[in-house]
Amino acid sequence: MGELLGVAVLGAGHMGADHIRRLDRVVSGARVAAVADPDAGRAEAAVAGLAGVTVHTDPEAALDAPGVDAVLIASPGPAHEAALLGAFARNLPVLCEKPMVPDSAGALRVVEAEARLGRRLAQIGFMRRYDAEYRRLKALLDGGTLGRPLLLHCVHRNVSSPPGFTSAQLINSSVSHEIDAARWLLGEELTAVTVRRPVSSKGAPEGLIDPQFVLFETERGALVDVEVFVNCGFGYQVRCEAVCEAGAARIGEDRSMLVTAAASARREVARDYLVRFADAYDREVQDWVDATRAGRVTGPGAWDGYAASVVAEAGVRALETGDRVAVELAPRPDLYASVSR
Amino acid sequence: MGELLGVAVLGAGHMGADHIRRLDRVVSGARVAAVADPDAGRAEAAVAGLAGVTVHTDPEAALDAPGVDAVLIASPGPAHEAALLGAFARNLPVLCEKPMVPDSAGALRVVEAEARLGRRLAQIGFMRRYDAEYRRLKALLDGGTLGRPLLLHCVHRNVSSPPGFTSAQLINSSVSHEIDAARWLLGEELTAVTVRRPVSSKGAPEGLIDPQFVLFETERGALVDVEVFVNCGFGYQVRCEAVCEAGAARIGEDRSMLVTAAASARREVARDYLVRFADAYDREVQDWVDATRAGRVTGPGAWDGYAASVVAEAGVRALETGDRVAVELAPRPDLYASVSR
Amino acid sequence: MGELLGVAVLGAGHMGADHIRRLDRVVSGARVAAVADPDAGRAEAAVAGLAGVTVHTDPEAALDAPGVDAVLIASPGPAHEAALLGAFARNLPVLCEKPMVPDSAGALRVVEAEARLGRRLAQIGFMRRYDAEYRRLKALLDGGTLGRPLLLHCVHRNVSSPPGFTSAQLINSSVSHEIDAARWLLGEELTAVTVRRPVSSKGAPEGLIDPQFVLFETERGALVDVEVFVNCGFGYQVRCEAVCEAGAARIGEDRSMLVTAAASARREVARDYLVRFADAYDREVQDWVDATRAGRVTGPGAWDGYAASVVAEAGVRALETGDRVAVELAPRPDLYASVSR
Amino acid sequence: MGELLGVAVLGAGHMGADHIRRLDRVVSGARVAAVADPDAGRAEAAVAGLAGVTVHTDPEAALDAPGVDAVLIASPGPAHEAALLGAFARNLPVLCEKPMVPDSAGALRVVEAEARLGRRLAQIGFMRRYDAEYRRLKALLDGGTLGRPLLLHCVHRNVSSPPGFTSAQLINSSVSHEIDAARWLLGEELTAVTVRRPVSSKGAPEGLIDPQFVLFETERGALVDVEVFVNCGFGYQVRCEAVCEAGAARIGEDRSMLVTAAASARREVARDYLVRFADAYDREVQDWVDATRAGRVTGPGAWDGYAASVVAEAGVRALETGDRVAVELAPRPDLYASVSR
Repeated sequence: MGELLGVAVLGAGHMGADHIRRLDRVVSGARVAAVADPDAGRAEAAVAGLAGVTVHTDPEAALDAPGVDAVLIASPGPAHEAALLGAFARNLPVLCEKPMVPDSAGALRVVEAEARLGRRLAQIGFMRRYDAEYRRLKALLDGGTLGRPLLLHCVHRNVSSPPGFTSAQLINSSVSHEIDAARWLLGEELTAVTVRRPVSSKGAPEGLIDPQFVLFETERGALVDVEVFVNCGFGYQVRCEAVCEAGAARIGEDRSMLVTAAASARREVARDYLVRFADAYDREVQDWVDATRAGRVTGPGAWDGYAASVVAEAGVRALETGDRVAVELAPRPDLYASVSR
Repeated sequence: MGELLGVAVLGAGHMGADHIRRLDRVVSGARVAAVADPDAGRAEAAVAGLAGVTVHTDPEAALDAPGVDAVLIASPGPAHEAALLGAFARNLPVLCEKPMVPDSAGALRVVEAEARLGRRLAQIGFMRRYDAEYRRLKALLDGGTLGRPLLLHCVHRNVSSPPGFTSAQLINSSVSHEIDAARWLLGEELTAVTVRRPVSSKGAPEGLIDPQFVLFETERGALVDVEVFVNCGFGYQVRCEAVCEAGAARIGEDRSMLVTAAASARREVARDYLVRFADAYDREVQDWVDATRAGRVTGPGAWDGYAASVVAEAGVRALETGDRVAVELAPRPDLYASVSR
Repeated sequence: MGELLGVAVLGAGHMGADHIRRLDRVVSGARVAAVADPDAGRAEAAVAGLAGVTVHTDPEAALDAPGVDAVLIASPGPAHEAALLGAFARNLPVLCEKPMVPDSAGALRVVEAEARLGRRLAQIGFMRRYDAEYRRLKALLDGGTLGRPLLLHCVHRNVSSPPGFTSAQLINSSVSHEIDAARWLLGEELTAVTVRRPVSSKGAPEGLIDPQFVLFETERGALVDVEVFVNCGFGYQVRCEAVCEAGAARIGEDRSMLVTAAASARREVARDYLVRFADAYDREVQDWVDATRAGRVTGPGAWDGYAASVVAEAGVRALETGDRVAVELAPRPDLYASVSR
Repeated sequence: MGELLGVAVLGAGHMGADHIRRLDRVVSGARVAAVADPDAGRAEAAVAGLAGVTVHTDPEAALDAPGVDAVLIASPGPAHEAALLGAFARNLPVLCEKPMVPDSAGALRVVEAEARLGRRLAQIGFMRRYDAEYRRLKALLDGGTLGRPLLLHCVHRNVSSPPGFTSAQLINSSVSHEIDAARWLLGEELTAVTVRRPVSSKGAPEGLIDPQFVLFETERGALVDVEVFVNCGFGYQVRCEAVCEAGAARIGEDRSMLVTAAASARREVARDYLVRFADAYDREVQDWVDATRAGRVTGPGAWDGYAASVVAEAGVRALETGDRVAVELAPRPDLYASVSR
């Protein structure tokens, strides 16, 4: 395929450093050309041993560095809007970690900017679309043999939440994955959201509403329920069951080796998303590199990032008010003909 | 244990005939002493070949027949109140199929009548309490190793609904099983109910709202969600997952022989409840016979039948109005110290 | 079905007492009429609280006791031959626990005695034929959709062996279940046996060869392998996979509730055969009672007991010699037209 | 990590072409520098669109091509010995597809040649060592919590065998994977082999002995049984259960999405090894590239290739004679201190 794709990585924190490793050692066809982080030492550390990389504290400078063909944004959410607009200004393809932009107004500005360009440059990091199980489920639903989906039952459990995690973040950070997955699997927009609060677990930090139970409605009348429980203590589990008119399909069961000992037959449960979705991250970045080198954008785009922001904001309002909150999207620019598949 | 328990069976329809067979050929320690059905021919047919049984069209006559020590009520729901009061008047122990009494006012009259007697005579046919898997789940929750239950996720699917089945019956007939199971598993009353209507399946008869998604709240703040889908077409499935503070437990997976052929590994799914819960019916009746012969009542009682009626009525109102409907129970007589376990 | 079947139970040890309980409290249509045990106190204890039972130290006396219609033999193996011949002499139907007769010469005398009677009276206690999973597998194989069976992979694991259990008993006591199951499932005789000795487990008592790996060949050339491991420590497991020309089917997976906690998803493993096969024992005795009252014999018969003895003897020789040992059966009397199904 | 590793690929058939694609588009850190195939057109086709690759009909010429740092041998087995010796002569690290050398005499010559070099250059393509499930099982066994392994039960099923596949190839091609996996998992050599022939399937080509049942013994007395069935028709299945002194562990269950429809709950079974072991191939080559760039050899080596050849030859003799055949290995050169882990 010719020359390696030179990537500028913005952000050298946990996620950025992992992507730098992935671009350098896992993915074929790309190389890290520049890295930017306000903490220059952290940026230097993340690229130690790599040749041909320039290090910057200013993201704009990284975008302008020699050999940069594309951008991977892994900086904190509030920095994403400027970074995306900067990439658009330079006509650089970009892979942006979720959330695309934390607030829906900013997300809409990104959508409008890309629509003005008249061509798609941005892919958003909804990596579940690259998980083998999710893809099988998507293919099954699209194939139509089970008929129309009526219900999605989702479970999203984490061992524990990071320090300072808020009740709103269960929606706009954790459930944002289910928001995108539901839109993608069903091929339609979410139209309303309700959040129920069962009694919180003793294992949750003081004041955190955890677990929560979230109900989404869709354009065509399907119902999506999500148990989100971020301090469950016992493992990382992401499950999804689609109930359709002629059958049901389920993904996300714990699937490791079966060990029988001491009067029980057990399978290990993953401890975190890097175990469960390691392959999905690798495949996401490989696909982005391959498509970018071929001059195409194939993954979830700015519209998907925007829609996720709007739904998440409605969800947080639903959590706060106890009411069913309608989701109101701006008109969809022609550039984004439909929910991306 | 001495003499066989002579049982009067009221109702010789599908359920009554099955119980007659069970008392005669499966269960130890009992015999059918009398049977009553408005259709005398049906009653005769149900006891063909049995010795020592009298056949009646009037249920009262059956209760007074020689050798009757106890009553099993399998007549249609509207006949239950009179039959229960008739049994109470004769001091006869009684096993009454669900619903105890279809309307909550009638159910309350039964509770009050038994409370006046000052001793328990009635057991209600919530047979899931006798299913081996449900009992394991109950024992686990009661044992406390998983901490307090926070959520119950329930699924109740039938291949197809009987002719004339109404949208309200999804709640007051199908979900009534989950109502009792939730009360029993959690050991507390349900306090409110909401019903959501996803788009109905093409497989459902014209006008039937199917599937439905029901949310119950409990006294201590647990949340119970139920997918009820009575025309799913693909099998009979009853599942329950309890999510607790320190773990989750799931019952109801399809568990038959694994057959690998033609590029798939598959397990048969039960076609109806008589396959899935055959053992539970046998165990229920055997336990009732054993307890009755020992002069005790051990199963779910009139209070459980009453509470189920009240919750089901609230559920039907919730379905009709789209609102969250509170459950209001009469004061609990001392005879029923707590949710029966 | 009229009068209860009066059963004389020979032997009031662990197994006999359990059958007495089963006849009295679980099974429909039968009652314990007499019990015999050399230890009169043990016999008295086993029938405490039962009315109408006579207690004996002489098994012959029990067979002659009033109200005895049939016999259940649960005495030690060496007493079986006399008990069976005694029942035949009185024309009494009999359910005999396995082994029918420990040595094949004695077993053949039983077969010949019954053949002389010209009617079948004996059923042998191979209870796996009454287990729901085994019956499904049998029905599948007989149905023919998977084609001809080529291999059976069997696993038979116990937590620990009883005191004094010998290396030969792994074959003639434990594997005897697989011997009968293989003959029944495949519908043909076993023709040769080889026994391999992997290194023994540290968990096995000094001198016991445990586990063992046994290979049977059948008339039509199928191969049956059995891992028998009676001090595995971790649970009671009985599995069987039939590999056929067009598919494979597996039974015996651990199937209880799935509990997810502490980073693992686990199912409890049964501790002993009374848990795993409780239903099979109940069904076996119920079927025997029903058939006996109807004047029929439907279960595994004396020929099956004899064949199991011969194969087990060959297996013990194979264990001792390390050689492949051929199985040589006497000609089959006409009374036993084929391997019983 | 600096410059890309330039790889000469010998053989551009099915396997070679797949490795070329993998080196170009999947694996990080390598590029295809040269390719050799007697069929120049096939070689050209396999590298169409790749820059900087030279194409050869003579493998020696490919080894001498500019930019070649390492060799991947994917030519037919009979060509392997010369290719390996050619790589050794040029001091080139090499990844050689299995079988290393089809006959054990040739395999021993490769071992001796590498031993004379005094450093390891060869890695053999036993890709199961790179499968996530096998690695977990290996880690569990090495961890020692289950005690010493006593038995391995293995299953190896293919949908159908390629044209011309012989009865001996079930051993020396199919079972060769189990030979290496057993040596690696148990960390010891195999010492004897017996092959049993159940009746062959109607689905097998005329004259092919299929399935076969193979028994290996190990140095420390463990027993390894393998069902190999290469025309099973229903799917590709590779399973392994290790039975240890304190527990058992099983890998290889079919694990895809669970689809419930039409009265059955089913999982798709893989159709071939490229589906089941796709990740293992990717990981194998990535690990080899990474280790080679770091100047190390970490995978299975020439001794493993040699031992597999000797055991396979013994297996074929065992198949032909029906006898137990002892495995006799040459003394192990110091370069290969132990069974490689």
